Amino acid sequence: MTTDFDARYSKLVDHVRQTQLLQSAQALLEWDQQTYLPEMAGEYRAEQVSFMAGMIHQRKTDLSYSEQLHGLAGSVWIQNASQEQQTTIRVLNRDLDRNNKLPLRLVEELARACAVGQQVWVQARRNKSFSQFEPTLKHIFKLKQEQADALAIGNHRYDSLLDEFEPGATTAQVTSVLSGLVKELVPLLRRIKDSNFKPPVEIVHRPYPREQQERLGRKAAAAIGFDFSRGRLDITHHPFCTEIGPNDCRILTRYDERFFNTAFFGILHEAGHGMYEQGLRPDHYGLPPGQYCSLGVHESQSRLWENLVGRSHGFWQHFFPHTQAEFPDALHDVRLDSFHSAINEVKSSLIRVEADEVTYNLHIAIRFELESAVICGELPVSDLRDAWNEKYREQLGFTPADDAEGVLQDIHWSAGLIGYFPTYTLGNIYAAQLFATAADELGDLETMFSKGEFQPLKMWMNKHIHREGRRLFPVELIENATELAVSQVPIMQQLIGKYERIYQL
Amino acid sequence: MTTDFDARYSKLVDHVRQTQLLQSAQALLEWDQQTYLPEMAGEYRAEQVSFMAGMIHQRKTDLSYSEQLHGLAGSVWIQNASQEQQTTIRVLNRDLDRNNKLPLRLVEELARACAVGQQVWVQARRNKSFSQFEPTLKHIFKLKQEQADALAIGNHRYDSLLDEFEPGATTAQVTSVLSGLVKELVPLLRRIKDSNFKPPVEIVHRPYPREQQERLGRKAAAAIGFDFSRGRLDITHHPFCTEIGPNDCRILTRYDERFFNTAFFGILHEAGHGMYEQGLRPDHYGLPPGQYCSLGVHESQSRLWENLVGRSHGFWQHFFPHTQAEFPDALHDVRLDSFHSAINEVKSSLIRVEADEVTYNLHIAIRFELESAVICGELPVSDLRDAWNEKYREQLGFTPADDAEGVLQDIHWSAGLIGYFPTYTLGNIYAAQLFATAADELGDLETMFSKGEFQPLKMWMNKHIHREGRRLFPVELIENATELAVSQVPIMQQLIGKYERIYQL
Repeated sequence: MTTDFDARYSKLVDHVRQTQLLQSAQALLEWDQQTYLPEMAGEYRAEQVSFMAGMIHQRKTDLSYSEQLHGLAGSVWIQNASQEQQTTIRVLNRDLDRNNKLPLRLVEELARACAVGQQVWVQARRNKSFSQFEPTLKHIFKLKQEQADALAIGNHRYDSLLDEFEPGATTAQVTSVLSGLVKELVPLLRRIKDSNFKPPVEIVHRPYPREQQERLGRKAAAAIGFDFSRGRLDITHHPFCTEIGPNDCRILTRYDERFFNTAFFGILHEAGHGMYEQGLRPDHYGLPPGQYCSLGVHESQSRLWENLVGRSHGFWQHFFPHTQAEFPDALHDVRLDSFHSAINEVKSSLIRVEADEVTYNLHIAIRFELESAVICGELPVSDLRDAWNEKYREQLGFTPADDAEGVLQDIHWSAGLIGYFPTYTLGNIYAAQLFATAADELGDLETMFSKGEFQPLKMWMNKHIHREGRRLFPVELIENATELAVSQVPIMQQLIGKYERIYQL
Repeated sequence: MTTDFDARYSKLVDHVRQTQLLQSAQALLEWDQQTYLPEMAGEYRAEQVSFMAGMIHQRKTDLSYSEQLHGLAGSVWIQNASQEQQTTIRVLNRDLDRNNKLPLRLVEELARACAVGQQVWVQARRNKSFSQFEPTLKHIFKLKQEQADALAIGNHRYDSLLDEFEPGATTAQVTSVLSGLVKELVPLLRRIKDSNFKPPVEIVHRPYPREQQERLGRKAAAAIGFDFSRGRLDITHHPFCTEIGPNDCRILTRYDERFFNTAFFGILHEAGHGMYEQGLRPDHYGLPPGQYCSLGVHESQSRLWENLVGRSHGFWQHFFPHTQAEFPDALHDVRLDSFHSAINEVKSSLIRVEADEVTYNLHIAIRFELESAVICGELPVSDLRDAWNEKYREQLGFTPADDAEGVLQDIHWSAGLIGYFPTYTLGNIYAAQLFATAADELGDLETMFSKGEFQPLKMWMNKHIHREGRRLFPVELIENATELAVSQVPIMQQLIGKYERIYQL
């Protein structure tokens, strides 16, 4: 009888693994679209992606698959199944319920609209013209509203979208977390602005040739633990990380030859994502025990390696000599402490991905307010640019000079990633809490970094986060790993401690 | 009633177009495998490719598709259908018959074996070790024998494989064409060897930096008519051309910084393939009126642009100044005529892709004899290396120093492309015949080339070859375009005329 259970389980798993083969081929189509696709090939690529999305959705909602899964979930033998089998069946059931609510037509149309959307966005951003993007974006938001209504999760239309990226999170919670955090960040930001200390930021705006930036970025990514024999680094418009197989994780970045931070911290950020992917259990590839928990947890990994490691003093004790060697013209006369304060400048600005750790979450709060308002029908897409500019003026004190540095700066909406932004702030909160616990257990992490030792922290994350897969909900996972309720205490402690030192508050 | 025919036709065509969406995604997986795939990702890529191949095969042999197609083919209304509709139905029927003979298991296993095979080949070639490749190759040949037996086309086991690349061609014909051609080439080769004139080949072995080679290659490909807004150029181990959509044709090359010919003529060759793909009718993309006729015809296009255009005196009258400007160190003291004779040196050698126009077909004859002998069970794979070395010693007067410049030099066998080699020689024969007819109709082509005018020749090919799709069998297509029976007369005239001038015979 258990043998029968195992045979049926194994058949189910084969189906899911085969679906994953298609999903990973789909990931390659999308990666290629962001890197090497010829100019004129976009339309056909949208057809390919749309057709594949439909085929994948059909496999995921296939009647015989659904019957097999329900049969296993209801079997008396499930009590005796392994923990991995139980996780797999439970999570696949949750996914199935979700997928069953989405009509095939909508899935295909969304995939097509988002493939086209990203291409239109690239053009519109190049031309700094929101108007050029507006009709496409209107269509995408309309489809996402339809998707939210079809899913009908939670009390708020936006809940359905959040749930895709952060299972269990709600609009109400996110509103409260963000406003609570902003309330503490604003006074810290004021103290920093009032400080007499001004970091010598001109240092990071000297000429940094692309080729050396790339070499240094690769060295840093490899040093913290990104495995290039199982991954790649390429160039794109808007950095991301994607996974095309258990040994094929690809990170992407962009270079600014007049600003050190863009590519370097971009690469560390994406390498953090990549190390999560590379740390998943390959024997469960494509199955819940071998999948990432949520995007908030994913962002906790990227933000941790980018900021808590990459912007720490210890990291630069080890890495500054390498950096000086790559950029002798820019850095020969610069001291470590000056460089460290320059890369950590806190300053209200217009561009999220280049924001410091203190102001970063203010950018997220704006995006969250705007996108949830559009989804709920409170803000028409045609007013989005003005609303964006208004909020930046109010909350950060700047008005974007053009749409490229304003409402068009992020790829997310063009790719249908609505409900994604809050996961960045959740990631920041999780990261600080994980880092604090890891430090309690492993000893002084900064001293380790100063000796180039990143392996202990990486192995801690492998054990407590990566190898847990989707067994737990994100909040459970963090609470399990840290033995503490999720809260903003660790992040605020970390930020206050760090910036009091740097800004001599 | 015709409306009913049209509706059924349109449904059929939708199915085929959707299959093409998957095939083009498959082409991207394969392109990526040859360019950017991380080292450790090969095994999973083989799974992806194998699964996709199976899915594509299932769609191609799907029962309801097959019934629809037979229904249309047998319909009384087919008499009134358009020429394109008739071509589509006729050729799809032929494809269906062929696909129906192939079991799904074999299709999947071949796809997996060839994906793995290419990776093993790259390693084995790097290590110059045929033994390392032998078990893999044995497996591939075994599967190809199975494939041949399942297809059971013609009188000879090898006929079934030939037919995949060159519909209508037989082993007997190819044997006769190759031996007839070799019989005329050998005396020409002897006359050339006996000549007192020796081209100053040291010129093409000077230092040619990669970056400038790439820039010049792109300029030349664009000049003859390859459209980079609908395509790309990348680097790989073994040059090829692939098509991932109607506006996404990708060519690949490799660079040798101590030999001008490798990349430059490699790029022209692949651009010739690419221009065929780009010249197909986009409104029939994925359907017989918009597909290439055969690989022999495909090679006629690549060899035409590589040799009949790219190695002509007229071409270099136009292009030599650009080349000198890119490589002032290598070429400042070189005259056009010296350069032209150097790139056209005739010399028995070991490497097919770098062979001149006279000896090239001798390489093909060797491969054809060997692969057809293995397929027929007359030569075991374990004896292939020795047989290869023996034939090179006998027929070209050299023994390879190692397996990399011997039996491992070509990717084809590792990719299951058995029966492909003869199409190179057929391509050479077709190319000369097409070129001669085009010259009769358009006027002196070399004079045009000397002025940088390549458009008339390209448009002639567009009209007479590319836009014909698969309406005709290859031999019919060439005879239709040239109004002459296919023969070796044009190629021998062309070679004798050219080399008598260069070698002052």
